[in-house]
Amino acid sequence: MDRLLRVNMTDRTAKFEPIPSAYASRAGRWLTSSLVHDEVPATCHPLGPRNKVVFSPGFVTGTAAPTSSRISVGGKSPLTGGIKEANAGTGWGRRLARLGIRAVVVEGQPERDGGFWMLKIDAKGVSFEPADALTGKKLSEMVPGLAARYGGRDKVDVCAIGVAGEHKMGAAGVCFTDREGRATRYAGRGGLGAALGSKGLKAIVVDDSGAAEVPIADKAKFDQGRKKLAAALGEHAITKPKGALNAYGTAVLVNILNEAGGLPTRNFRSGRFEGATKIAGEAIFAGNKERVGKDVYNHPCSPGCIIGCSNTWHKRDGSEHTSCIEYESDWAFGANCGIDDLDQIAELNLLCNEYGLDTIEIGGTLAVAAEGGVWKFGDGKRAIELVREIADATPLGRILGNGALVTGRAFGVTRVPHVKGQNMPAYEPRAIKGIGMTYAVSTMGADHTSGYTIAPEILGVSGKLDPLNPQKTDLARNFQYATAFIDSTGHCLFIAFAILDIASGFEGVVEECAGVLGTDWTMNDVARIGKAVLDLELDFNRQAGFTAADDRLPEFMLHEKLPPHDGVWDVPDEEIDRVFD
Amino acid sequence: MDRLLRVNMTDRTAKFEPIPSAYASRAGRWLTSSLVHDEVPATCHPLGPRNKVVFSPGFVTGTAAPTSSRISVGGKSPLTGGIKEANAGTGWGRRLARLGIRAVVVEGQPERDGGFWMLKIDAKGVSFEPADALTGKKLSEMVPGLAARYGGRDKVDVCAIGVAGEHKMGAAGVCFTDREGRATRYAGRGGLGAALGSKGLKAIVVDDSGAAEVPIADKAKFDQGRKKLAAALGEHAITKPKGALNAYGTAVLVNILNEAGGLPTRNFRSGRFEGATKIAGEAIFAGNKERVGKDVYNHPCSPGCIIGCSNTWHKRDGSEHTSCIEYESDWAFGANCGIDDLDQIAELNLLCNEYGLDTIEIGGTLAVAAEGGVWKFGDGKRAIELVREIADATPLGRILGNGALVTGRAFGVTRVPHVKGQNMPAYEPRAIKGIGMTYAVSTMGADHTSGYTIAPEILGVSGKLDPLNPQKTDLARNFQYATAFIDSTGHCLFIAFAILDIASGFEGVVEECAGVLGTDWTMNDVARIGKAVLDLELDFNRQAGFTAADDRLPEFMLHEKLPPHDGVWDVPDEEIDRVFD
Repeated sequence: MDRLLRVNMTDRTAKFEPIPSAYASRAGRWLTSSLVHDEVPATCHPLGPRNKVVFSPGFVTGTAAPTSSRISVGGKSPLTGGIKEANAGTGWGRRLARLGIRAVVVEGQPERDGGFWMLKIDAKGVSFEPADALTGKKLSEMVPGLAARYGGRDKVDVCAIGVAGEHKMGAAGVCFTDREGRATRYAGRGGLGAALGSKGLKAIVVDDSGAAEVPIADKAKFDQGRKKLAAALGEHAITKPKGALNAYGTAVLVNILNEAGGLPTRNFRSGRFEGATKIAGEAIFAGNKERVGKDVYNHPCSPGCIIGCSNTWHKRDGSEHTSCIEYESDWAFGANCGIDDLDQIAELNLLCNEYGLDTIEIGGTLAVAAEGGVWKFGDGKRAIELVREIADATPLGRILGNGALVTGRAFGVTRVPHVKGQNMPAYEPRAIKGIGMTYAVSTMGADHTSGYTIAPEILGVSGKLDPLNPQKTDLARNFQYATAFIDSTGHCLFIAFAILDIASGFEGVVEECAGVLGTDWTMNDVARIGKAVLDLELDFNRQAGFTAADDRLPEFMLHEKLPPHDGVWDVPDEEIDRVFD
Repeated sequence: MDRLLRVNMTDRTAKFEPIPSAYASRAGRWLTSSLVHDEVPATCHPLGPRNKVVFSPGFVTGTAAPTSSRISVGGKSPLTGGIKEANAGTGWGRRLARLGIRAVVVEGQPERDGGFWMLKIDAKGVSFEPADALTGKKLSEMVPGLAARYGGRDKVDVCAIGVAGEHKMGAAGVCFTDREGRATRYAGRGGLGAALGSKGLKAIVVDDSGAAEVPIADKAKFDQGRKKLAAALGEHAITKPKGALNAYGTAVLVNILNEAGGLPTRNFRSGRFEGATKIAGEAIFAGNKERVGKDVYNHPCSPGCIIGCSNTWHKRDGSEHTSCIEYESDWAFGANCGIDDLDQIAELNLLCNEYGLDTIEIGGTLAVAAEGGVWKFGDGKRAIELVREIADATPLGRILGNGALVTGRAFGVTRVPHVKGQNMPAYEPRAIKGIGMTYAVSTMGADHTSGYTIAPEILGVSGKLDPLNPQKTDLARNFQYATAFIDSTGHCLFIAFAILDIASGFEGVVEECAGVLGTDWTMNDVARIGKAVLDLELDFNRQAGFTAADDRLPEFMLHEKLPPHDGVWDVPDEEIDRVFD
């Protein structure tokens, strides 16, 4: 019943194909990485006609499984040159799943620059529409109108790229509508927005009107599983209603990481930011309360989420400024840029949403630019002007829009905190060794979401480990395997907090998936599937030319001591190379 | 007797050391690549404190051996991230050799940006002088005055970086004075000027007053060798007085390559340029004759050269415009930028000399920028403005100054004709397969001088091969081994035209070297030494993370047919991988 939709942008044709039998029980990241591995030449140019952009909802996306509306987006990354999977929470993938579409493969490229096009997918089929009129705009000025044209947010969700993707910039993400129809949810990392831009595909509107329910092979097993997961999520302190994530959002981490000395500050010059409390999740909650006049709890980004971690920041007059200020974005523009003003951070976040940019890469890029003398850390007004230059595609904007490594090249900066060309997220490897291992070996470049060892190293989830202990080889491997499985289910990674601590919750996830697919998977299959995903990704990267030399943290971290712990990166190369050996 | 001078820019100290016994018979490229391989961590940042810049004159530099005043410069390349050796003809290395200095190793880096310094080397020792007053200037405004301060061009030669090196740009070369004291001779490729800039070293003045002759172990063998070489050079049609190089300079190649359909035009979109005859070596000769009022033959760039291929282009009033318009520079700004005006090409060449830029990389970069919509092919006035922007270090200038690959990233261009991040020189691989093999496997990135197979493929030197025949595996290997040997002798590579055709000439080169060093080398040692050099370089690059995936031509050349032959790059990957396997 499930189909694969192949979209050819060279001649603007689209056709449905049956899912190849080898992929019968693959979805989400497993399926995007399979298709990229099997169909994209690893040495092709990521902005050329032989790259592909693949979308796939997870095993249980579109069902009643809680917090499962993730869409995986894959391709060869314009930022790293390696394989990429980035995922987002949105109703878009849910509608795709309900239409029986397990994957959309966007391939080819107009032979000449032929302007932009959009795709409409519904129960009747697929159509192409000219999209030049949609280009050059802020996403908030374009996406709601586009949704309205096709029946409004109750009927459709939208996937779109912003001006950064139109300009094929390496920091361009892929944007999706949230539960309220806002263009705020991102498969942000790795520049897949640029890959779509290179194909002339501006937007994909999905309308699932009239679609049947997602078929479930073993309803009893599925229901048993989803109830176990829901119970775990509802119980755990991090994921329960009015728990840490629902009250303070992911930005609850600011004070925690600052306390641990692991909050990278001013381009990774320190692990403590003196302005941390002013930008923390608690400050967002307090600020919103003051401006709105009541407690403002967070909301689900996508249908069916029972965690609800997505926040909204409000202006002084109580009106909405931006959604969502994730911990990573808060840190990227805050601590890492030396900015302690939430209104300025919110504006930078908003601009990235408007232009279709990855906040982590852009915050990291601004910090490298400050290191290179382009602006001064802490000057939020100037930072805002710089992000506007990206949208204007000035020469400086083109440098910044292509990320931290290109910016480092342009300005002769040696302190670029990246792995494989992707800027590091909000956890300092010299203070938290396991996450440094994840950054080093991740197939995605520096990426916390590929193996969130912060859970045991900082949060005490699934036990408590010393973050400064460099023996994290097995931890890094196991977390990446488990994550690759979760990224294939369609669940948000945040279920991990609960299911790592509550075993029945993890069993529930496996039962849900086995129930939908009709497989006999048990907990023993989690690592097997995760390893299968990683093996495909590692093989792609090997073919693309990556070696152990690419699994290294930047040189300065080996020599420069990080306050307050004054440690350097001291995990032996042999241990890094042992993770996936 | 020979010494190694170690210059530490962290604390500005210098000391002489004996040459390690393992290096007793190494010089030129063999010695720079040995020191870089043995002392520079392959994964270090090329602009960081652990990179080193190494200078070494060749085996016979400083002797009476004809055309032997080359200086090798080595380091980890800021452009490619791999090992780099670039060499130039200049009296500078000759003076170094006469002072008994076999190598200068510049290492370390000021801990804070401490401005710029210069080094004075003479028979009494080494001194550091502040050089901030020398920065920000055109090299023609700075170098002659600096030489004059130390006794003038009869006493000293100067090595310097221009503003591009000060700004640590990837296209920054290392400049040396020519025989007339002009700042025109470049170890241009790979950005070693940026590596010097990162160390705060602006210039090195060498005064060999009072130095003894370079010691020669076996004077009779040496004299026998140099006479054989001189005879071959004086006899061969390409190298003899008023022969091809002396009359028309290297730009004699323009018409020849155009005829062969191998002259890359407008960013490698065609192998023929309709304006070729207007920019050819013959046009330079004719233009000079008209403007100066007589035949103007070319001159030696460095003392002791009996080929004399270095030209000067004159303005309408007969005054000097620039020296030298090499074939590569002529092509880079001419055919590859669609410019057919020699005065505009001369101005672009002059500006690169003034700012310390590699003409090949900058011409290639301008072509990629035209492809990206920055300017229009053929608009020479705009091209001149763009190169001026590099000196001004505007954001656009910083993009362009960092070369073709960074420019391609900034402007989303997929057609970047590079290998390992270095732009291709003036021979189209789809029309001349052997040079494409050289580009692919060279340890230096795309580089014609690492194995000039153009000699047999186009010029009929050492036999005549079909350029379109893709079976060039052995040719590519043998030429690179022979070249690595020649690059270690201190001879200019242009002796190859004569010695490949006249066996006694090649014997003479080996006898010269064996005579100086007191070794028993024969012709059988040429490939052995060449292989030893390449093995060091290949090992460095392997440690730096290069794989077979980096030994590939850009994707577009595999698919896009090149007029007029309409061929694609069709050398099988397995053959490429067999060159050094």
